[in-house]
Amino acid sequence: MSTEKCFSKGSAKPGPVPNGHIRLYSMRFCPFAQRARLVLCAKGIKHDIINIHLRDKPEWFLEINPLGLVPTLETTAGEVIYESPITCDYLDEVYPENKLLPSSPFGKAQQKMMLEHFSKITPYFYKIPMGRKKGEDVSGLEAELNEKLSKLNEDLVNKKTKFFGGDSITMIDYMMWPWFERLESFELKHCLDGKPALKKWTELMFEDTAVKATMHSVETFNAYYKTFAEGKPNFDYGL
Amino acid sequence: MSTEKCFSKGSAKPGPVPNGHIRLYSMRFCPFAQRARLVLCAKGIKHDIINIHLRDKPEWFLEINPLGLVPTLETTAGEVIYESPITCDYLDEVYPENKLLPSSPFGKAQQKMMLEHFSKITPYFYKIPMGRKKGEDVSGLEAELNEKLSKLNEDLVNKKTKFFGGDSITMIDYMMWPWFERLESFELKHCLDGKPALKKWTELMFEDTAVKATMHSVETFNAYYKTFAEGKPNFDYGL
Repeated sequence: MSTEKCFSKGSAKPGPVPNGHIRLYSMRFCPFAQRARLVLCAKGIKHDIINIHLRDKPEWFLEINPLGLVPTLETTAGEVIYESPITCDYLDEVYPENKLLPSSPFGKAQQKMMLEHFSKITPYFYKIPMGRKKGEDVSGLEAELNEKLSKLNEDLVNKKTKFFGGDSITMIDYMMWPWFERLESFELKHCLDGKPALKKWTELMFEDTAVKATMHSVETFNAYYKTFAEGKPNFDYGL
Repeated sequence: MSTEKCFSKGSAKPGPVPNGHIRLYSMRFCPFAQRARLVLCAKGIKHDIINIHLRDKPEWFLEINPLGLVPTLETTAGEVIYESPITCDYLDEVYPENKLLPSSPFGKAQQKMMLEHFSKITPYFYKIPMGRKKGEDVSGLEAELNEKLSKLNEDLVNKKTKFFGGDSITMIDYMMWPWFERLESFELKHCLDGKPALKKWTELMFEDTAVKATMHSVETFNAYYKTFAEGKPNFDYGL
């Protein structure tokens, strides 16, 4: 994993992707890019990471991906893949070690359906903290989030498994994780109260090697989000 | 394919899914459900179709899928799959005849990225006709749609292929098709002007067997959308 400072407009284009490697264009605090970082780590894939200044993107990066999104993968053959679930599925399919998606079509479909549900939860993790900063009443949003998280808790209880795809970590856990890692920084940790199965899941996730390898401390997140809320995100905070 | 009238609240639950069949819960005019119908037809999968009254859903359907969405698939084993791209991928994986998705991971990723782009186009096909009915100025929306469709046209030109995944129809063509079938009913056919590659694609698609088997005439769509705009969609129109 790279700890390099981010590349901005005017920067020199990095060299080609080394043979036997795959390259991830990322931003250290982006939860979507973290999905790809988790999968790269969990599968032990040789990779390099180029961090991108998301408010001042390099011209050469916009040539690679005109949408300018992170995560973006680039292979030695020059193939470009983006959108976090697409990058993660691609990695899981190309690299056979430690398969994260189930092999059965129905198992795969179940994970995709869970991800679809979860994609309706992530916006709350922005709306609530940003609403609070503006002094808005976010109690309605918190109640909605609470209901959705209760469903996730129920899901684990009904499944009687430790993780969302069984008793070991699978793709769906990594897809959901980045937002739970940030709960304390979002001042939303109380949302786990009364949801013991979901709370236990977060505790187990914190023990995972890939989670440990890609995470930031609460202090680092707090400092980064402060710069974000002020409109001047410091993508290199802590380097 | 079934031409049965739709099931409403209070209806008797249909019998179990016959052995060797798969069941699709659908609505005859729903473009998302049509994606699954296209894949079922193109792959020659034995299936039955149960049409659902989307404004008055049967209790037993909400037990099968609490979200009440179409398309929903149900297998003889009682497995339930929903969200149109997930149902289509599932069908393509389970039924090996006439594979619609590429076998290479990058080929698959390319189709998913195209689908992600396309998902930003579909809302215009509702917003523009509905805006017009309300007498709103939709010229801005039309300009945006036009730009997005130009990109699709460019895509085909750059690829130098007849279809979006090569010189024969693949999954992405079926994923995009239902909205193009409705262009004339949406009074948006002029959006193909100046986009010869995209226009040629629509002409070739109209010749496809699965497209022919799942389509409705412009007159039927017009009559259905009239009831829809009036707030009383007649899901059984023409039966």
